[in-house]
Amino acid sequence: MARQERGIRSRRSILEAAADVFGERGYDAASTNDILARAGLTRGALYHHFPSKEAIATALVEAQSEALVVPDHPVRLQAVIDLTLTFSRRLQTDAVLRASVRLAVEQSSFAASAQRPYNQSVAVIEDLLGQAEKQGELLPGTDLPEVAATVVGAFTGLQVMSQAYSNRRDLPARVSALWRLVLPGLAVPGLLPRLRTSAPVEPVEAVEPVEGAPS
Amino acid sequence: MARQERGIRSRRSILEAAADVFGERGYDAASTNDILARAGLTRGALYHHFPSKEAIATALVEAQSEALVVPDHPVRLQAVIDLTLTFSRRLQTDAVLRASVRLAVEQSSFAASAQRPYNQSVAVIEDLLGQAEKQGELLPGTDLPEVAATVVGAFTGLQVMSQAYSNRRDLPARVSALWRLVLPGLAVPGLLPRLRTSAPVEPVEAVEPVEGAPS
Repeated sequence: MARQERGIRSRRSILEAAADVFGERGYDAASTNDILARAGLTRGALYHHFPSKEAIATALVEAQSEALVVPDHPVRLQAVIDLTLTFSRRLQTDAVLRASVRLAVEQSSFAASAQRPYNQSVAVIEDLLGQAEKQGELLPGTDLPEVAATVVGAFTGLQVMSQAYSNRRDLPARVSALWRLVLPGLAVPGLLPRLRTSAPVEPVEAVEPVEGAPS
Repeated sequence: MARQERGIRSRRSILEAAADVFGERGYDAASTNDILARAGLTRGALYHHFPSKEAIATALVEAQSEALVVPDHPVRLQAVIDLTLTFSRRLQTDAVLRASVRLAVEQSSFAASAQRPYNQSVAVIEDLLGQAEKQGELLPGTDLPEVAATVVGAFTGLQVMSQAYSNRRDLPARVSALWRLVLPGLAVPGLLPRLRTSAPVEPVEAVEPVEGAPS
């Protein structure tokens, strides 16, 4: 058990080191030696987890699908909105997730695999939109694959822009603005006033108020 | 006159060479030597136009604002749509423009200047939206700066995604999909059916029909 735990921890430390190194040098200029030095591990320990630089990058890209946690909200369109808001907040604090998104966005010799994270995100959102459609939440005639791809593409650009302007501090606000603009063309009018376009809770770092406490 | 023309041509050939070199190696790994070799110019000729690698990158970024040609359409919301469609088509064929966008999207030591092209695009679109608002084309309460920033961010991501999927072949279709989704939350209902979300003309390479010719 302890050995397995050490394994998980050293795998995570390799991904964190790779996130730093890819972040500083870009994928092509980074070497496994740089990643080893950063992680403070031996080459043997690295190869135990990853046979190559490409394998590390592939594992980093997987981090994006792990971050696509589907919220439990009964209104499935609200679940889509909350998914993007939660992803935004995680991008602010999770260096591995940031490196993962950057690998997808920047053109490098790894770019051949760049469609994969988009495919995963589009599939998750298209599935949620399908559930929303069944529940009568969407305007008739909504093109689910087209809307899912548009939301993923738009989100991708908003986070690139937010990175340039504020190191992603303003990302949740930009994503809220996207939903305000998009929802009238997507949701049935009766649902519109019930949809919430900003995050239901404060960032995870903040202390949450105790339920039932006087405010 | 001939001398001036030669100057313009050698400036353009430096930008094209830099577009190639930045495209292959990324900004940080590229050197002015690489650019010189690609352009087939002397160091003196390079310095005549640009004092540094950073100055070349700055000039490349300027190429984006040159590509922001505001269309002449009397419906100003249509002009915004057409601006994005024309920019999409130019991205497919213009290597200098592609390099310009890539410099803005990818994080490098040049990234401090990365807000500039966004600022320019947002300003142009916000101005057009202001004209559209004055003409009664927009839904009341439209937040012009917010919508302009959202359109620019969304466009940025769609072109990144289109690059990954199709080397930007499907970019105009993705931009059309964005407008179909966004317009019901932006345009007054009476205008909606009159707005065209795909390009009015074939790509510039195609032969244009002669006006008045039998079709």
